Amino acid sequence: MRIPKHIGIIPDGNRRWAKYAGLQKKEGYAHGLKPGLDLLILAKDAGIQEITYYGFTTDNCGRPPEQVKAFSKACVDAVNLIASEPVSLLVVGDEDASTFPKELLPYTTRTDLNGGGTRVNFLVNYGWEWDLAGLDHPGRNRRNICRELHSHDISRVDLVIRWGGMRRLSGFLPVQSVYADFFVVDRLWPDFQVEDFAQALQWYQEQDVTLGG
Amino acid sequence: MRIPKHIGIIPDGNRRWAKYAGLQKKEGYAHGLKPGLDLLILAKDAGIQEITYYGFTTDNCGRPPEQVKAFSKACVDAVNLIASEPVSLLVVGDEDASTFPKELLPYTTRTDLNGGGTRVNFLVNYGWEWDLAGLDHPGRNRRNICRELHSHDISRVDLVIRWGGMRRLSGFLPVQSVYADFFVVDRLWPDFQVEDFAQALQWYQEQDVTLGG
Repeated sequence: MRIPKHIGIIPDGNRRWAKYAGLQKKEGYAHGLKPGLDLLILAKDAGIQEITYYGFTTDNCGRPPEQVKAFSKACVDAVNLIASEPVSLLVVGDEDASTFPKELLPYTTRTDLNGGGTRVNFLVNYGWEWDLAGLDHPGRNRRNICRELHSHDISRVDLVIRWGGMRRLSGFLPVQSVYADFFVVDRLWPDFQVEDFAQALQWYQEQDVTLGG
Repeated sequence: MRIPKHIGIIPDGNRRWAKYAGLQKKEGYAHGLKPGLDLLILAKDAGIQEITYYGFTTDNCGRPPEQVKAFSKACVDAVNLIASEPVSLLVVGDEDASTFPKELLPYTTRTDLNGGGTRVNFLVNYGWEWDLAGLDHPGRNRRNICRELHSHDISRVDLVIRWGGMRRLSGFLPVQSVYADFFVVDRLWPDFQVEDFAQALQWYQEQDVTLGG
């Protein structure tokens, strides 16, 4: 079986889920924690080496304050859950801004936890423009471009899986995703099922990797 | 009806089409010309203001020489066809490389033709890394980033439509596409049907534009 080395996860649909469940929008995020951990374990068992979770972005921070507070807390909780697994963990985002949760500062340097393992990147207060902000005449050498990204420690993404039905990247790692295959799950993220992941991997088998060639 | 301002077109599947038709792979590209012109007229009638066609990339130039020659010629022919319409035309790509067709050099400055009209951008010998190569510490200001792209005269893309079934951007305008909705048509590009475009526009109605917010 052909397994992607690196998958990107866009866990969308928490607010819609909350609304359907008769809750306040902000209450949806907490229901996205267990799916994130379940997915990590499935991915590890499948032999995937690197996972990047789309936590929250600087764009998202324009939402109502109670939602910002709620998704920020959910990301802190998610990272702490992941940190109890055997992973090599990195939190990537604009750590100098007030919207970056201070509790996650220790993880802005990659850290092997519980003996190390799957490379897990968690985007927190990330922005595509922040990612590109420091490019300094890299020239067309791909290695140089990638080295000058703020997200330079995140490798090329093979497969992006987005829950919640939207077919867009919403600013997710524009450089690392240039060649990524893009699989969309209609189900909302808090309703994550094992079969969503299995279908994404199954679909990925049928794709060829050409890197644009 | 909610109409995208700017659509990106990835006209994929020419070689597979040729194979199914019992032709040589390189013979497929010529069958992609009429669809391109048909689409331009449909888009104009729908009120779309800007279209970007993914012609060929520097990545593609690694293919067998007879294919490179064939897709290069098809792009020259396509641009000449488009140039007979009322458009504001710009060809964008690495014009200094030997793989850039010299016949298209006059269009590397935006030119109003036949009274001007739809903004049409045609990517020829384009590379995402070439596009980013000149960024000079833009900072996180989006306007600065976009201004420092080689493709700075191409605006944000609202909707990318890809023919040929693949669900990936393959290096298409990574910065302008960060928020783009992505519609995939399974049909191969030379088999383009009016309904493909109609379905893409119909689907686009159901999407909301949040720009990541």
